[in-house]
This record gives sequence, structure tokens and C-alpha cells, in this order.
Amino acid sequence: MSSTRVLTGITTTGTPHLGNYAGAIRPAIEASKADNAESFLFLADYHALIKCHEPERVRESARSCAATWLACGLDVDRVTFYRQSDIPEITELSWILTTIAAKGLMNRAHAYKAAVQDNLESGDADADKGIEMGLFSYPILMTADILIFNGQKIPVGKDQTQHIEMARDIAQRFNYIYGDTFALPEAVVDDSAMIIPGLDGRKMSKSYNNTIPLFEAEKKFKKLINKIKTNSLEPGEPKDPEGCSLFSIYSAFTNESQQADVRKMYADGIAWGEMKKFLFEFLNEELKDKREEYNRLMADPAELDRALKVGAEKARNVATPFLQEIRSKVGIGGLAG
Amino acid sequence: MSSTRVLTGITTTGTPHLGNYAGAIRPAIEASKADNAESFLFLADYHALIKCHEPERVRESARSCAATWLACGLDVDRVTFYRQSDIPEITELSWILTTIAAKGLMNRAHAYKAAVQDNLESGDADADKGIEMGLFSYPILMTADILIFNGQKIPVGKDQTQHIEMARDIAQRFNYIYGDTFALPEAVVDDSAMIIPGLDGRKMSKSYNNTIPLFEAEKKFKKLINKIKTNSLEPGEPKDPEGCSLFSIYSAFTNESQQADVRKMYADGIAWGEMKKFLFEFLNEELKDKREEYNRLMADPAELDRALKVGAEKARNVATPFLQEIRSKVGIGGLAG
Repeated sequence: MSSTRVLTGITTTGTPHLGNYAGAIRPAIEASKADNAESFLFLADYHALIKCHEPERVRESARSCAATWLACGLDVDRVTFYRQSDIPEITELSWILTTIAAKGLMNRAHAYKAAVQDNLESGDADADKGIEMGLFSYPILMTADILIFNGQKIPVGKDQTQHIEMARDIAQRFNYIYGDTFALPEAVVDDSAMIIPGLDGRKMSKSYNNTIPLFEAEKKFKKLINKIKTNSLEPGEPKDPEGCSLFSIYSAFTNESQQADVRKMYADGIAWGEMKKFLFEFLNEELKDKREEYNRLMADPAELDRALKVGAEKARNVATPFLQEIRSKVGIGGLAG
Repeated sequence: MSSTRVLTGITTTGTPHLGNYAGAIRPAIEASKADNAESFLFLADYHALIKCHEPERVRESARSCAATWLACGLDVDRVTFYRQSDIPEITELSWILTTIAAKGLMNRAHAYKAAVQDNLESGDADADKGIEMGLFSYPILMTADILIFNGQKIPVGKDQTQHIEMARDIAQRFNYIYGDTFALPEAVVDDSAMIIPGLDGRKMSKSYNNTIPLFEAEKKFKKLINKIKTNSLEPGEPKDPEGCSLFSIYSAFTNESQQADVRKMYADGIAWGEMKKFLFEFLNEELKDKREEYNRLMADPAELDRALKVGAEKARNVATPFLQEIRSKVGIGGLAG
């Protein structure tokens, strides 16, 4: 059985939260254990620069993301876990692809179009006001991220399928001009991906400012669980688990039999305070060893650097010879030919 | 006396012609001999990909440009002579600058605007039809070319001053966000730069298809000189050197006293055939040793590679630590800080 190369990027802005853990980190680590998967997982720090021009935040977030994935059990012997900026072949390929990517393709990218729309709606005469080239051309960098490793399956959210279509488009154009070189990547949209509610009941997301940081200190973590919005039913009154944030979060980590027990507690009229305590204890059990490991790693960033260095070497073992081949195809490199 | 860093790029499309020699190659080699100049001279092969998707032409042109500059006397011990694609720091910096460059700046670039104008004039509904991202974003790559070496003086033609203004703009923005890092480059427009006429009397230029390749074989070279357009005055009739292509070309390589002698020949009614023979012999004398060296180098591209490797090492001695500093300023790199 031949293995499929699965490639996942983690944009290093912010600190991972419980929603990231349920929806992305936990399932990706599970998937990386499959025998027929060859996982490439990277910290997309050059993408982070698009959104963030604060060096300390960029660095702190990369640190926190690296520590989180490792603390959650990512096996660096099994997975190629690297930092984008450790692979200079990526930005070099990005330029090569820039020379063949149609500008019209970028004009149609959702994120760019949304920024233009914002400008027009606020009555700006200049549709591109405040828009930087990073936002405009990052689909090319993303294409290079994928193609340099000939990534075949790219797990993405629904809102990101356009990027994978663009990567296919650019790969096809390169293959057409210079001959077969790149596998055409495919988006893998997991409709069953866990989306958990945040403090206010909406999807947990940094942009809603309603997140629970994954490795918040235990006391603060408990406080945040207590802040999750519920309805005003009294203790003793039967409660409906459907649409309840506490139950949704619990469900993301449990099987049906565990869930059935909690449904019964709801029917029996468990008090919200009790249920929050129950949820906190459950999550704390799931997370406390990982939290300890996370704290240990955050206090020893040199160990993170060592882990990432191993990954960079593995990644460059693939990227360096492949870029050499690509350079030669476009006419770049040694003159002796 | 502190030295000024002068940086010149040579786009590797096509084969150098007599106009390139008179206007750029000869004066740049002269200038590189000055005591207070530190010259960086590079083959811009990643720019060539914007215009040319034919690998053999890109490679052949790089070979021909490298051989030409070396044959014309470029001293690789004195000048840092390298190939852009040998310096991965350039494309990496190009991405970093992409994240802070305003899209509006690119919208206003002459080359892009001209391409849009062409589309509109031919009645295309899509103003960006056929335009690739390379054309749109190459001012950023050019900025990286300059800034990675903190180039101070950039000799350019008048049509290129906008690029240097863009590079200043991007450098200033970087310095503003991340603290003083880059010297602001200055365009040096040499109004006295030699422009010589081509076969048809217009400026010698690849785009007019009127060039005389610099190292054309002697026989063919003579034939081309004979094809230069003159007027129909007969032998014996006095002729006006002003506006005469033959005299203009001769003047580009001679001093006033030499020119006075030829003015007298014109006044005395020299036949065009005689004058062409005279010009051929003069140019052939100037070029024949160089042509021989060029042919030798073209037959031994491994020697070109060796020369460029020396340059790449010198260039990377500057670029590698500087990029490290830049990466650290934007928040990229080791997590142990």
C-alpha cells in the first residue's frame, strides 16, 4: 500500500485554544498515526507576518504552537514537523511560481476581495487602501508550501478550499509549460470536524474573542469554564443537552455511551454549577499532563528548537533535491548544464 | 574615505549587443576600477523568468551574459559578481518585504500600467488579461536585490528610477515598523550614458530588432556593420557626421581628437562603403581579443560556473548574516531567542 502525503500548516498567530485542539490538533495527531499516512506538519511563520508586524507576538506564538503540538503527543520521528522559515526552498519556489501565476487568479481570492469590499463599503475611493502585498499574494506562498513537498491531501476548512484550487491551477500551469513536475493537491474537507462553542455560545474563535486557551493555568481554566454561557434554568429543572455549550464541548471529546450518561444528568436536572464542575474536571483530566509538558517546553525553548531542527532536516532532504530539479526545468542554475 | 556600494543587475534575456556594451558594460567595468567603489554586479536570472518561459533561452542568455562581462575585463577579485539565483537570501527577503509592501504601490508601477493599458486599448474587458504575478510584483524582488546588500548607489536608465523610488519606499516602511535596518538606495542616472543607434538608425534595442550582437563572428559582424542605414550621398560629396549612425557609434568609443579626424574624412566626402570598412576595422580591433576570450568561455561554461561560485560566496558572506538580523527583527527564527 503506497502512502499518501498529507500536509497541514499551522499559522502561528495567537495561542492555541480549546477549539483548535478539538477541531484540528487532536484529529491531526490521531491521523498522523495511520500507517498509510506520511504527515508533513509545519508552523507557517511566514504567513504569520502577513497579519502581524509585532515580532514578539510572532515569536511567542510560534513557541506556543510548537510546544502545544509536541505536548499533545505529536511524534516527531513519525511526522515531519518543521518551521516554514527553516526551508528557504519554499520562498524560492514561491518566486518561481510567481512568474507563472496569473494576476487574475489573485484578484479573485476571497480574503483579498473581502478586504476590497470593506474599503468600498467604508466609502474609500482607493479600493486597495491599507492592503499589503502579503494579503494579495499569499495564495502563491501557500502553493509553494504544498508543491515543494508534492503534498497530495490537504486537510482544510471549507473556507480554504479556494486556496487548494489555486494551488492546483498553478501546478497545472507549471506542468503545462515545463513538463510534468507537480502532483495536483486535493483539499480534504472533513465535514465531521469538531466545532465547539466559545464562552458566548458562538463558534470558539479568536476573531470572536470568546476562546478558552488550551493550556491556561488550572485555576484560570476553571474560571473560564465557569464563564461559559448557559440558560437560566434552576437546579432540579430538567435541561436540554442540545444547544447547550457545556454539552457540546463535552461531546467533542467523548463517545456516545459517555454522552448518554450526561444526557441523563441533564434530564435529572443537574445544576449548571455542578455541570461546569463536572466539565472542568473532565477536561482537566484530559489536559493536565499535557499542560505540564507544555509548561516544561515553554520554559525550555531550546528543546523546541532541537525538535524543529530535526524536522527541518527531514523536510529539506525532500525539498532541496526537488527544488534543484525545478530550477533546472525553468532554466536556472549551473551554466555547464 | 569610505567606499560606496554600487549595485547593478543584468537581466539575462537575450545576447548582449553593441548598445549594451557602449551604454552599460564598458562604463560599469570602468567604474568598478575606482578606489572608492565597492561593486556588486549580478545576473538577474530570476527576473528573466518573468519575460521568458523557455528554459534553454534563459540558460543560454545567462551563459552569454556571464561570458560577455568576464571577456570584457570584469575583475572578479575586485567586483562581487554573482548570479541572483545563487543567493536564496534574496527570495526569502523578497517575501518578508512582500508582507509590508503596499499593493497600491505595485498598482502604480509603469510596466504593469503599460500592460493594463495595452489590454484596455485592445478592447479587453479584463484589464489584467494575460498578466502574470511576476510582472506585477517584480519591484519587490528588485527591492530585495538591492536591500539584501544595502546597495547605496544604483546606476539605472531614466525609465527605471521609479523602481528605485519604490525600493526606498519599502525600505523606509520596514525601518519604520522594525527599526533602522536598511540604507535608502539612490538612483544614479547617468545622462551622459552612451546610447548608440542600431541598424535602422533608432536606438539599438532588442525590442526594435535592430541590434548588432557584441561578439558576432567577425564575418557576420562585418556584414551587419555594412547593413547600417546611411543616406544616399555619393562618394566625393561632403557628408554631415551629425545624425549619422556610423559616426555616432564611432563616437561612443573615441575621444574628441579621434572624432575630429573622422569629421574631416566626412567633409572630404568619404564613401559610405569606406566609412563602414573603417568603422568595422576600428570596432574589430576593440573587440577581437575580447571576442576570442568570449568564445573560449562559451566553450567552457564550467569556468563560468567557477567564477560565479566565487562571487556567490562573497555575496553570501554579506547576505547570510544580514538576513539573519532581518529575520530576527521581524520575529522569525530560533525560539530560544
